[in-house]
Amino acid sequence: MIPRYTRPEMAAIWTPESRFQIWLDIETLAAEAMEQMGQVPKGTTAAVRERAKFEVERIDEIEREVKHDVIAFLTNVTEHVGEEARYLHMGMTSSDVLDTCLNVQMVRAADLMLAGIDRVLAALEKRAFEHKLTPTIGRSHGIHAEPTTFGIKLATFHAEFQRARQRLLLAKEEVSTCAISGAVGTFANIDPKVEEHVAAKLGLTIEPVSTQVIPRDRHAMYFAVLGVIASSVERLATEVRHLQRTEVLEAEEFFSAGQKGSSAMPHKRNPVLTENLTGLARLVRSAVTPALENVALWHERDISHSSVERGIGPDATIHLDFALHRLAGVVENLVVYPENMLATINSMGGLHNSQRILLALVEKGVSREEAYRLVQRNAMRTWKKEGPLNELLKGDADVSARLTAAEIDDLFDLEYHFKHVDTIFARVFGKA
Amino acid sequence: MIPRYTRPEMAAIWTPESRFQIWLDIETLAAEAMEQMGQVPKGTTAAVRERAKFEVERIDEIEREVKHDVIAFLTNVTEHVGEEARYLHMGMTSSDVLDTCLNVQMVRAADLMLAGIDRVLAALEKRAFEHKLTPTIGRSHGIHAEPTTFGIKLATFHAEFQRARQRLLLAKEEVSTCAISGAVGTFANIDPKVEEHVAAKLGLTIEPVSTQVIPRDRHAMYFAVLGVIASSVERLATEVRHLQRTEVLEAEEFFSAGQKGSSAMPHKRNPVLTENLTGLARLVRSAVTPALENVALWHERDISHSSVERGIGPDATIHLDFALHRLAGVVENLVVYPENMLATINSMGGLHNSQRILLALVEKGVSREEAYRLVQRNAMRTWKKEGPLNELLKGDADVSARLTAAEIDDLFDLEYHFKHVDTIFARVFGKA
Amino acid sequence: MIPRYTRPEMAAIWTPESRFQIWLDIETLAAEAMEQMGQVPKGTTAAVRERAKFEVERIDEIEREVKHDVIAFLTNVTEHVGEEARYLHMGMTSSDVLDTCLNVQMVRAADLMLAGIDRVLAALEKRAFEHKLTPTIGRSHGIHAEPTTFGIKLATFHAEFQRARQRLLLAKEEVSTCAISGAVGTFANIDPKVEEHVAAKLGLTIEPVSTQVIPRDRHAMYFAVLGVIASSVERLATEVRHLQRTEVLEAEEFFSAGQKGSSAMPHKRNPVLTENLTGLARLVRSAVTPALENVALWHERDISHSSVERGIGPDATIHLDFALHRLAGVVENLVVYPENMLATINSMGGLHNSQRILLALVEKGVSREEAYRLVQRNAMRTWKKEGPLNELLKGDADVSARLTAAEIDDLFDLEYHFKHVDTIFARVFGKA
Amino acid sequence: MIPRYTRPEMAAIWTPESRFQIWLDIETLAAEAMEQMGQVPKGTTAAVRERAKFEVERIDEIEREVKHDVIAFLTNVTEHVGEEARYLHMGMTSSDVLDTCLNVQMVRAADLMLAGIDRVLAALEKRAFEHKLTPTIGRSHGIHAEPTTFGIKLATFHAEFQRARQRLLLAKEEVSTCAISGAVGTFANIDPKVEEHVAAKLGLTIEPVSTQVIPRDRHAMYFAVLGVIASSVERLATEVRHLQRTEVLEAEEFFSAGQKGSSAMPHKRNPVLTENLTGLARLVRSAVTPALENVALWHERDISHSSVERGIGPDATIHLDFALHRLAGVVENLVVYPENMLATINSMGGLHNSQRILLALVEKGVSREEAYRLVQRNAMRTWKKEGPLNELLKGDADVSARLTAAEIDDLFDLEYHFKHVDTIFARVFGKA
Repeated sequence: MIPRYTRPEMAAIWTPESRFQIWLDIETLAAEAMEQMGQVPKGTTAAVRERAKFEVERIDEIEREVKHDVIAFLTNVTEHVGEEARYLHMGMTSSDVLDTCLNVQMVRAADLMLAGIDRVLAALEKRAFEHKLTPTIGRSHGIHAEPTTFGIKLATFHAEFQRARQRLLLAKEEVSTCAISGAVGTFANIDPKVEEHVAAKLGLTIEPVSTQVIPRDRHAMYFAVLGVIASSVERLATEVRHLQRTEVLEAEEFFSAGQKGSSAMPHKRNPVLTENLTGLARLVRSAVTPALENVALWHERDISHSSVERGIGPDATIHLDFALHRLAGVVENLVVYPENMLATINSMGGLHNSQRILLALVEKGVSREEAYRLVQRNAMRTWKKEGPLNELLKGDADVSARLTAAEIDDLFDLEYHFKHVDTIFARVFGKA
Repeated sequence: MIPRYTRPEMAAIWTPESRFQIWLDIETLAAEAMEQMGQVPKGTTAAVRERAKFEVERIDEIEREVKHDVIAFLTNVTEHVGEEARYLHMGMTSSDVLDTCLNVQMVRAADLMLAGIDRVLAALEKRAFEHKLTPTIGRSHGIHAEPTTFGIKLATFHAEFQRARQRLLLAKEEVSTCAISGAVGTFANIDPKVEEHVAAKLGLTIEPVSTQVIPRDRHAMYFAVLGVIASSVERLATEVRHLQRTEVLEAEEFFSAGQKGSSAMPHKRNPVLTENLTGLARLVRSAVTPALENVALWHERDISHSSVERGIGPDATIHLDFALHRLAGVVENLVVYPENMLATINSMGGLHNSQRILLALVEKGVSREEAYRLVQRNAMRTWKKEGPLNELLKGDADVSARLTAAEIDDLFDLEYHFKHVDTIFARVFGKA
Repeated sequence: MIPRYTRPEMAAIWTPESRFQIWLDIETLAAEAMEQMGQVPKGTTAAVRERAKFEVERIDEIEREVKHDVIAFLTNVTEHVGEEARYLHMGMTSSDVLDTCLNVQMVRAADLMLAGIDRVLAALEKRAFEHKLTPTIGRSHGIHAEPTTFGIKLATFHAEFQRARQRLLLAKEEVSTCAISGAVGTFANIDPKVEEHVAAKLGLTIEPVSTQVIPRDRHAMYFAVLGVIASSVERLATEVRHLQRTEVLEAEEFFSAGQKGSSAMPHKRNPVLTENLTGLARLVRSAVTPALENVALWHERDISHSSVERGIGPDATIHLDFALHRLAGVVENLVVYPENMLATINSMGGLHNSQRILLALVEKGVSREEAYRLVQRNAMRTWKKEGPLNELLKGDADVSARLTAAEIDDLFDLEYHFKHVDTIFARVFGKA
Repeated sequence: MIPRYTRPEMAAIWTPESRFQIWLDIETLAAEAMEQMGQVPKGTTAAVRERAKFEVERIDEIEREVKHDVIAFLTNVTEHVGEEARYLHMGMTSSDVLDTCLNVQMVRAADLMLAGIDRVLAALEKRAFEHKLTPTIGRSHGIHAEPTTFGIKLATFHAEFQRARQRLLLAKEEVSTCAISGAVGTFANIDPKVEEHVAAKLGLTIEPVSTQVIPRDRHAMYFAVLGVIASSVERLATEVRHLQRTEVLEAEEFFSAGQKGSSAMPHKRNPVLTENLTGLARLVRSAVTPALENVALWHERDISHSSVERGIGPDATIHLDFALHRLAGVVENLVVYPENMLATINSMGGLHNSQRILLALVEKGVSREEAYRLVQRNAMRTWKKEGPLNELLKGDADVSARLTAAEIDDLFDLEYHFKHVDTIFARVFGKA
């Protein structure tokens, strides 16, 4: 957890106070179930609810002696509740509390990240419609290809974050389980109905079968999804970084009034937010492998996963949550330069129309190979700044034998490329 | 691709022949759509279907000159089809073919792996019911905890592979898309209806919006799922390795007649299959990070993903497919030693009942802390081989003041632990 | 950074106070060099040394406005120094300060970790000599192989941590460089002698050529080494976990008086320290890939590496440092049970001597294949508890035709296996 | 191993034939040592050398029965050698052969990669001197910073590949060991002198202490180094990709005569080699984590590492070897456009001189903060194309009060930035 990349809402989920409060909720709900089944005396739950408290420092103090966090917690709670506390944790094992708690935290974290994705989606939709027909060059390999619109660019990201949203919902569902099944998952000393009760009250489903722990393939899946979403964040960040580079400057991160770009060079306006997002993506992704390594615990469990989760649990969710909001801000405030986009398209002498000409020649009966050769030999001259492509084509006897000057000029019409924008928008946004 | 870890069915998906055949299918279907819309002459598709052929070596030869695989392929096909070939690839870009083909391959690979998971599931279910009530010690931290059954152990894996199946179905769906959208995804020179036609014929859905390529977050998700499944394979493999170690020997991989365990030591019977599965899990997982790094392609695409996918595409699917079948075989043929399992349970002087006694003391009015102390002081003596726990407890005045000798013996009943096995089996298998 | 896995000495390296103090040192030393060359007024350095101060909160406050940490720092320092502060940072760029500072921190962190390795080495050496001739079974595949000594086991780890030490020294050297080369590494506005001066004063070497930053392949190498060392920690931790499992119990982590192993089961003594080390190893390793991804910065630099290093810089060093000391403690206090080790050796009816018998038969003129068959058929009977191997061999006519009963018994002498222990110890420890 | 990214020299190291030949060499050398010590009959080695042969298919056939590769190999060799073959593998264990062989292969692979690095270094040096004084803009964050030379850019890569070379030498040394220590490393049935003999003959050093295997921290370090070198390859590849993008076009991969850039767009010239190198870097890096996971083998060894190494051993070395040679070719043939580089520098109205002006103002007594403000306000106007920076500064009363027009123009001298190029070259190349 790096403070500067942390939103307080997400940090709050991972504090010791939050964790112990969830533990207390689980223990109390379990006692409640047992009380309803007549397994602990009437009034136990009410007494616990009335008097239960804990102090993080006191728990730490006890843990230093007993070297066991759940025992330390229970001891501290007992100091407040007194007699009735003996009915807490009856037939349960630490992992019943720890793992159900972790899942509650991961579900809450998922909800916050979903809100972040929603903000990204809203920003992308707004800006996509704003630039639905803003022409910009499409590039493959960093080389100009054919024109597209800036709205379509943004639509590709919207579709990607719709998928991110769907994946995160599934990841959340993966960890939305509760296990209260005792020391090795046999319910030897606790009725399965307790698990059902606690699960229902916490909005979780029961874990069909647990060992001592909730199986870690669930958490592995969760962190894997965070890694994929982080990579989608990186793709959008990379696009902005490219668009802002000096030679392109088709879009730019918002640069606030007092901001300084460089301690040495007062002229600099750097895409620092999206570069930061690129780095954060690396950090979030780094949680995936240890989460995968956590799956193969020994027998009914070992505790090697615990230290890993103390690290990646907060870190990966906090950083991705922060990244999503930072990304949303970048999109919301992105300064777009349509005139530069148009200038870029026009800077290459019409090269981006090479395919259209090739197809037109094929339609006129030229073989595909021959057409390719004819277009390429003129395109290479345009590349060397010997003239705009349409003019060179008109002067090429082999071409002009098939296409009139007017036909050639028609093939350089920019609007031609945008006739299916409505179709694409309808597919992505459900409206055009 | 390591030959010894390769099943021919999966290898067949990834041969050059398979790939080129899918390319040809895509090109032909696209021409068919255009013919139906009147965009290419009637009869084109029929002619292509009749005469189209390709030779891998010839394609390689052409590629060495033009340094472009799709162009090389089309040139070779044209050599066979003649005139009508000019209507192939009309308005399309290489990635339309390459990416749709890759998705077809990944879908087929997923289907094979699903069959592998089904075999694992069937084996686990069969063996789980066979050992539904075979007592075995549950272990946390490698230390004896409380008894469970070998059937429950297997049930935890069944539940995990049910999740694996569900995840793989979703991963398959992620890559079940077709994109035929032209150079930068604008359909500038090709009607979106072509994409719809090809998608439908190939059993895919249309990609709502593509750049030049099908977005790589889909493939990242796919490989991430393979990584999670591989980790589940590793968990089961690790369990078998532990059970087979000399000091435990509660289960053993099948050891065939002519097999030799060691070149030096004729007595050895090693869990080499599950150790191998552990290694294969590492290999499959190693595909996840490069797949994540493939997401952030530059602008409408760069081609850095291609070499990565040439590696991890075949490798990760081939190795996981092989691992699933090897795993299924291990489970099907696993030699189980119920008598050793029982001996293990009984080897520790009844220590595994410590929690039951603690709970019984609490019920008799002892505080949880006091009960813990009473049990632990006797348990530590049993640990030191000073006597079975029930006898020591009977001789402990503080305990015998609360529990009669008969009550204590009752607390050591093994069957007590298995009263909820039916519940667990019903949850996992839908029957008990 | 997870507080419970953090030693204060290492945490101190990574505080904002430490970082800003190093920045101030660098800036002051640079000014000193310029003053010596007559490029800034005499007395500048003295004035800075006398009055320079900074407040972390004030710097944070300024940074919130200017969004640039080095500018914020300089502004705060200027508030204290006044007039002469204008000669600070002359011709330098932020990265000159940031990167040299990071290297200073990484060097200090390496020194702390080297001390940790030294403690591990000392503990291993002491325990290795203590158990130089303590017989224990060697295991491959978890299956008994041939006897070795516990001292040899520990010697393998000592040799491995000697390598770890050597690697860490090299990693430290990799990042022991200083760059003060200006905005793009050309020394346009700063004399290379400034770099030489600062480097010498800080105990670093000059970076032969920098872009705007110190090249990140150096840091990648550093974190890669931490990942390898963490994996060696995991190997030793895994060994202890295996030795402590109930069925083996040949060694055990020290279990302190008040310690509780389980909230539910009072009898438990779990290898929680080494399980924790296994998890920490995963965490430390997770820094390697993002460090590798940090190498390919764009052009003369982008800032994507920064957020990554804010995470992995402290985290990986803090966790490995903690792990090394925890590991040293585990070795120092390890409870070893030589009697159990011997019992383990003897538990398998002498199977571990199978190779010796095979070799003896070969010496008697039996072919290797035939000898293997003869030994294996008796070994398999011993495996099935049909009798100790030496007795079975004596009763096997094909064997007793070649080996007398006395010869067979000689082949079961345990001391035979330890004749080269001195050689091994001399190789590893330089003494036997 | 992907055929198109494979050089035959490297592939040859990893064939079954090579592996079995090395096995035979090891077995023969071990027998030779024993013969010299009188432990096997005189003439054994000569007989083996004369008659020993093997056939890969026959070994495979035998392995299918015995499921053990070394036994299969020995059986096949025995079929040719006859009687004397019984003295092969005496007192050895399979890993003695397998691990020493793997190290021999990894050493040979390192030698090939060192040759690749040398070719990269030679190309970088040649091109660096060629463009030692070719002005080009330095960029941080993708934004123009200050001028540098293309030679300096290349020098940064030369220095990085010098480090790569040094690291690879160390990695090679890490795996340059031989272990012939028997089943659990005790030399129970083999004299340590055999190990010394084989090591010396193979140009290796002895492994000071082995378990059953050569410790895998060595191999982890080797693959980690490959990952770092691959990341350096990626940094250079990324630089070329940026320089070739349409808007920059300061350098370009060589584009051969018959080459086609796109199946759809005949005008395209794409940086496909460096994009490919970017992907290969991801593939090579993916070997690092499984290599780290291979370290913590169980007890004296398990065989989980084997399948991993069958994959990453050939794959990572083959792909990095290929990448190094491809990279060398890119540098050797890189088409550089100095005129475009100069045009780029001049395209921004002199903004890259902002720091010089700031420093000049500070020298004239302006405070650093005030100077920053003065320069930034004019720089922002130049950024908005309101005029070249020097002209705007001359027209700014606050600036012209401190700097004359002539002084301002002097501050825009390009050569100023290159005065330390000789120093840098001397540091990197040992000559200027």
